[in-house]
Amino acid sequence: MATMRSMQREGRRGGRASRREARASVGAGSWPVLDRQVPVYDVLSEDRLEALHQASIKLLEEIGIDFRDDEAVAMWREAGADVQGYRVRIPEALLMNLVAKAPSRFTVLARNPERNSEIGGNKVAFAPTYGSPFVYDMNGERRYGTLEDLENFHKLAYMSPALHNTGAVTCEPVDISVPKRHLHITYSAIKHSDKPFMGPVTAPERAADAVKMAELVFGANVVDANPVMLSIMNCNSPLVWDETMLGAMKVYARANQACIISPFVMAGANAPASASAAVAQLNAEALAGVAFTQICRAGAPVVYGHFVATISMRSGAPLSGTPEMGFMNLMIGQLARRYGLPLRSSGMMASSKKVDAQAAYESIQTMYPVFLAGTNYVMHSCGWDESGLSASFAKFVLDCEQIEMFYRFGQGPQFGDFDEAVATIKDVGPGGHYLGTEHTQNNFQTAFYMPELADANSYEQWLAEGQKDATDRAIEKVKTMLAHYQAPALDPTIDDALKAFIAEREAVLPDSIA
Amino acid sequence: MATMRSMQREGRRGGRASRREARASVGAGSWPVLDRQVPVYDVLSEDRLEALHQASIKLLEEIGIDFRDDEAVAMWREAGADVQGYRVRIPEALLMNLVAKAPSRFTVLARNPERNSEIGGNKVAFAPTYGSPFVYDMNGERRYGTLEDLENFHKLAYMSPALHNTGAVTCEPVDISVPKRHLHITYSAIKHSDKPFMGPVTAPERAADAVKMAELVFGANVVDANPVMLSIMNCNSPLVWDETMLGAMKVYARANQACIISPFVMAGANAPASASAAVAQLNAEALAGVAFTQICRAGAPVVYGHFVATISMRSGAPLSGTPEMGFMNLMIGQLARRYGLPLRSSGMMASSKKVDAQAAYESIQTMYPVFLAGTNYVMHSCGWDESGLSASFAKFVLDCEQIEMFYRFGQGPQFGDFDEAVATIKDVGPGGHYLGTEHTQNNFQTAFYMPELADANSYEQWLAEGQKDATDRAIEKVKTMLAHYQAPALDPTIDDALKAFIAEREAVLPDSIA
Repeated sequence: MATMRSMQREGRRGGRASRREARASVGAGSWPVLDRQVPVYDVLSEDRLEALHQASIKLLEEIGIDFRDDEAVAMWREAGADVQGYRVRIPEALLMNLVAKAPSRFTVLARNPERNSEIGGNKVAFAPTYGSPFVYDMNGERRYGTLEDLENFHKLAYMSPALHNTGAVTCEPVDISVPKRHLHITYSAIKHSDKPFMGPVTAPERAADAVKMAELVFGANVVDANPVMLSIMNCNSPLVWDETMLGAMKVYARANQACIISPFVMAGANAPASASAAVAQLNAEALAGVAFTQICRAGAPVVYGHFVATISMRSGAPLSGTPEMGFMNLMIGQLARRYGLPLRSSGMMASSKKVDAQAAYESIQTMYPVFLAGTNYVMHSCGWDESGLSASFAKFVLDCEQIEMFYRFGQGPQFGDFDEAVATIKDVGPGGHYLGTEHTQNNFQTAFYMPELADANSYEQWLAEGQKDATDRAIEKVKTMLAHYQAPALDPTIDDALKAFIAEREAVLPDSIA
Repeated sequence: MATMRSMQREGRRGGRASRREARASVGAGSWPVLDRQVPVYDVLSEDRLEALHQASIKLLEEIGIDFRDDEAVAMWREAGADVQGYRVRIPEALLMNLVAKAPSRFTVLARNPERNSEIGGNKVAFAPTYGSPFVYDMNGERRYGTLEDLENFHKLAYMSPALHNTGAVTCEPVDISVPKRHLHITYSAIKHSDKPFMGPVTAPERAADAVKMAELVFGANVVDANPVMLSIMNCNSPLVWDETMLGAMKVYARANQACIISPFVMAGANAPASASAAVAQLNAEALAGVAFTQICRAGAPVVYGHFVATISMRSGAPLSGTPEMGFMNLMIGQLARRYGLPLRSSGMMASSKKVDAQAAYESIQTMYPVFLAGTNYVMHSCGWDESGLSASFAKFVLDCEQIEMFYRFGQGPQFGDFDEAVATIKDVGPGGHYLGTEHTQNNFQTAFYMPELADANSYEQWLAEGQKDATDRAIEKVKTMLAHYQAPALDPTIDDALKAFIAEREAVLPDSIA
């Protein structure tokens, strides 16, 4: 019979050390998109769900929504909407016919086919944080992000098994001029990882550049037939789609690339001080955006997206992890399922200025309802802090460990060895113990998730190991991962073509915004 | 139209300051036991639930369970079980007939009738941490607990609006000798708070002392007719009820006081390395304990309780917040509902040695499924750290804020002002804003939960305010609360009687364990 000590030895050999090594080595441990086996959680009755839907429909029929782009309103007029200036009023039948053209699920190709991501249905893909001007770096300093930081985030995303997307502008590389930045962001995502990535949306020409870079990697025919990028278009709430976002939307939808239609709602500021009414507005904005992608190209892959936060009615600051944010996520989940659309939300949100208890409370309080809502594409799964103003290296890997636990939770309780395990109870009997049983021996590596960054050791051992807090351990892990990073192979012909394209574009792009 | 600034002024006057003051004043803001309006979350199919139940029944019929107490086995024999030595084998019909005698809900009286706690059904009561030898004190030091610490914890429990129970031995007052400790713990809980409290279980005589003290407060007839205490009896897993716990159980059940029957399961150590099989064992232990209380006194109030953790199969250390703990909680919730029994679980568990990100990740990862499981009595809702070895003052108030959010979440999304709020969307129109609208004015105080300890301010403001982390702010809040504490009135006659009883018992009790 094995003793605890011999199991510990084996555990150390087969367990923590090898797992850490495996995670820090090339591509090892990359997990497929989660096939969720646990149920979604509905907080609304059918009546309430219908009331929300009807409220959104009435908003679009009676008040309408602005599409502040000449071509877009012409397209809406042509499609049959009531257009006055930039104001578009959309009858329910037209809206729902367009929404019905959107696929309920689709696959985003990766340059490594093993990393292809199915989006929709019961699938859950996790993606890192996005869009922060600042970083909390490996010395704990807060400063503007650089291209080197961004490359490091892309490397970490590649190496994190529960992440299914490399992301894009995890932090802003402010050392690159704005007109050229999208080229380097996109190149870094392609170069440093072989998972799917996200495209720039800050101007239609930049979106077009990203499509061209994707064509260099995958071939133009493949890109026209399959999404290889997901890109976020934020609605300018309340009820305004602006020219920039519509420009990117047109480029991507026409190129058959996935658009994530995301009303950006700060309830109380740009939506009502009511979780349910804020969702009614957001739903109108999302449906109008989804419908527009289908005018651009029927059948184009599109995600019902959103960003929701409640604000502090004292200071106007966006909050994270509030119960009303939970409700909004759950209500939106029910709406997205009603329309048969894949759903995007934001996972590990925090407003703290340190990776402290606040950051973690807020992150899981945000993430749990996001997960239960049946979200298919979880943005901001790791690294987001300071209400999105900063991307944190420490929080990136800490959050990833939590995401691994959500992944495991999503696989549902295991019953494969139930009879054998119950038989063990009979063998052990009252007053016995399980550490040395054959069932435990055979299952101890896999029965329970064992976090690496959460220290469950004794106080005395923790003292002896230097009294490290979670952030200290996380920074150590980041450094170890980056030290062990090995780039995924990229065909040198493709790499050269990408570099040549960037050089060609840089030659004509200005160094700063006029 | 009100400006953001004027709303901020009003918010400051009516909001944060007055709320903080209210919380720090006598009894203000104490909330009734939550009447949960959101659904429970079932992870098991009916088939799987039935398989778990059947496995537990077979364990009790075929292997049996030890009741290591002469009177207890005699009572089981008399009731009709197959008894050999301390081993009791219980036929399903006998077991389920006894379980059916237990009430599905009951009310625990408080000395302030406004604090009475209904336990069972859709009700959710939150109680603080319990049983830690150490404290993390207000200077951040880890040391043994004292009676003064315990009194402070009882004061905080009294002042925390989302807590429904004062608890008992929040920390061990090691400055009081063991044989006399229960008297001072129970007195402090009665004296410093007017919420229900918990009783000692370390010896039957001590349980009897607590019942006598309760009788001095409520009157003997009231205590015989109503529970005024809940007390935890841990099963010595696997499948052993020991003499000490059975002794306390007999005292409390016969006195009509609520027993929380709690198998103490460390899956992988004293239960199988399988979440589902561990629940089958735990369920057998809980049902046998619940049934025994009904032999003691038919209809005695009893709670299906448990403590579950998975262990690190590397070190043997108990973990917190793992996905398998989530599954176990959810499965047990389904079982408790099947039997019509109130459910107790453990909420904000953490294994960290600091109130850092780890502590908070673990706490919410534990708490969320506990809440979704339909738990009626949430032990360890605040203050638990270091796997229960330490009670933390900072974590106590930080966790309480999170519990307030779970309370709010449990009330469900609000639709009372839905039509009015949607009408506001029409008034505001595309591109408008909501800060100054009448609806926002009327609802901004209540629409969204606004945490007090989570800092959502700008980085610059946070810097200017001293770069405090969540723990710093929490310690400040603890000090403010204790400085503003005002004891709830206690009839001097009762107080004197309690003191006289303690003196009388102390005169005969030894100063140390022989």
